[in-house]
Amino acid sequence: MTGTQTRIVLARLPQGVPVVEDFTAETVPIPQPGEGSFLARTVLLSLDPYVRSAIAGRHPGHAASSPGDLVPGRGVARVIESRHAGFAEGELLVVETGWQEFLVSDGRNARLVDVRMAPASTALGVLGMPGLTAWAGITSLAAVRPGETVVVSAAAGAVGSAAGQIARIGGARVVGIAGSREKCALATGTCGLHACVNYRQEGWQAELRRATDGSVHVYFDNVGGPILDAVMDLLAPGGRVVLCGLIGQYNTGVPLTVPLASIIKRRARLMGLVVYDHEHLFPEYLATASAWVRDGRMRYVEDRAIGLEAAPAAFHRLMTGANVGKSIVVVTPEDPDA
Amino acid sequence: MTGTQTRIVLARLPQGVPVVEDFTAETVPIPQPGEGSFLARTVLLSLDPYVRSAIAGRHPGHAASSPGDLVPGRGVARVIESRHAGFAEGELLVVETGWQEFLVSDGRNARLVDVRMAPASTALGVLGMPGLTAWAGITSLAAVRPGETVVVSAAAGAVGSAAGQIARIGGARVVGIAGSREKCALATGTCGLHACVNYRQEGWQAELRRATDGSVHVYFDNVGGPILDAVMDLLAPGGRVVLCGLIGQYNTGVPLTVPLASIIKRRARLMGLVVYDHEHLFPEYLATASAWVRDGRMRYVEDRAIGLEAAPAAFHRLMTGANVGKSIVVVTPEDPDA
Repeated sequence: MTGTQTRIVLARLPQGVPVVEDFTAETVPIPQPGEGSFLARTVLLSLDPYVRSAIAGRHPGHAASSPGDLVPGRGVARVIESRHAGFAEGELLVVETGWQEFLVSDGRNARLVDVRMAPASTALGVLGMPGLTAWAGITSLAAVRPGETVVVSAAAGAVGSAAGQIARIGGARVVGIAGSREKCALATGTCGLHACVNYRQEGWQAELRRATDGSVHVYFDNVGGPILDAVMDLLAPGGRVVLCGLIGQYNTGVPLTVPLASIIKRRARLMGLVVYDHEHLFPEYLATASAWVRDGRMRYVEDRAIGLEAAPAAFHRLMTGANVGKSIVVVTPEDPDA
Repeated sequence: MTGTQTRIVLARLPQGVPVVEDFTAETVPIPQPGEGSFLARTVLLSLDPYVRSAIAGRHPGHAASSPGDLVPGRGVARVIESRHAGFAEGELLVVETGWQEFLVSDGRNARLVDVRMAPASTALGVLGMPGLTAWAGITSLAAVRPGETVVVSAAAGAVGSAAGQIARIGGARVVGIAGSREKCALATGTCGLHACVNYRQEGWQAELRRATDGSVHVYFDNVGGPILDAVMDLLAPGGRVVLCGLIGQYNTGVPLTVPLASIIKRRARLMGLVVYDHEHLFPEYLATASAWVRDGRMRYVEDRAIGLEAAPAAFHRLMTGANVGKSIVVVTPEDPDA
């Protein structure tokens, strides 16, 4: 295939929260696949908080980016032309696409998407890395038991909404924390959580205490900072805390911390979660959760932007918490399965 | 029994590290036991870091002290006169004595000391609360396995020296951290640790890296602060950290913290330890460890001060790390079992 494509590169290194001016679109030739690789067309691009730390060189497997570099990211892509024995033309994959329309890949970390199981976009969210992250944290690290009280922050986000639902399906009483009335409505409505507290509203700590009866067995933390401090104050003796994300720190780079005395006082167990450690759980998760998605027990919400050029603004929304649900950019709207 | 006794009370509330001027001796009548209580004579007084937070009202079960209050503390005491059915004259007990020569007790939290098992003073150290703290942390929370690399801070202290030896006897490779050459010699000599690093010596972090081959499976932390930060940098993926003490914070009250990113990066498990949760393990610990003490596999070192009036200076030494081994005040030197 010949011709040109659009791709989005860094115009400059973001300072704090990324803004649209940090990115610029450029037109380049469509790359040609060599022996052992394939050409694919990006259908859907996933926007995830880790991309912010990857650009800054603070994410495993990613060197720090420089101005002019392609923005990293995974997406769903369709194989157009293959010179790789393991991938055939027409196959739909989750793969490192970067923020571009066409990509050449050697297939590393690529996996097939089966649209008979669920819509392709779920492979980036509820049935992809964010879902697996939630599953590993709730079932493996925290080992949530029926009847326990579980708190999940960023409860309307891709990871948080999956974590809350997995805990709820497992028999826990789940209280979400989110940053708007709309997000809380999503958490209690669509996701079926017991309650949700809007941390941007005055008196939210007292509301959280009431909603949890002052006793939290498990906290799935996506944010750190003052929200973590507030939940630590409500932790039951021996309570478990899964540390999964630090959205504030991704932008500022200022280290968030937790006081040692509060860990000792609560006899807490704090556990760091990195999803790459848990990839062996993926087949089990996919089988379990795709059935839940099909029978409606597990729901998902997407924040879709249309067209690759919309990616910078959508990423800014994600990093300021203005998105609701999984952030996806539809790069090739004509694809029937997207 | 009639007459007077000496007791030590707070002259004023300590600011920072307690100094001898914070305490004063006074002469008061020997108390009389009522029905259901007994009079005992303090033989040995235990000095422990928790007393500093107890005075400040930051320790469970202790209200903040005021000037004029008896200094709290546990000790070994002999029953002199009993009006309690559960305790007989002549029995030797571990009990809340406070810093005084005679005490009346209702027997709450008292336990018999069997001097045929080991010398009475061990009931305050290696075979008492400090030893049980070490046992709970190493065997229950961290569940140390043979061949693992374990780091213990305050390695020459009452808890640290027990933790290091329990891990060593369990088959781990143990590296101590302590604050002087003399303490390190105790840790590697008497306690048989693989190595010990003096954190007051230039370049100690590099030495710790070498001694641990840059990979720590379990860290038993008695101090928090920069030493915790340094060990976190060496933690193997999935490494466990037992948070047991915060010696710096006891004096200053300034909260010590740990960065969330270092927990996530190392997939660490941080666990708060409070010994009172683990008292059910005491019979098992006592049976196991007293045999080790008798056969010489487990050693202990004591820092003894003679006479109740020496307690304030000995406590100052403890809180500045100038002691070596378990801090004990011999209150009644004539007791044959002390």
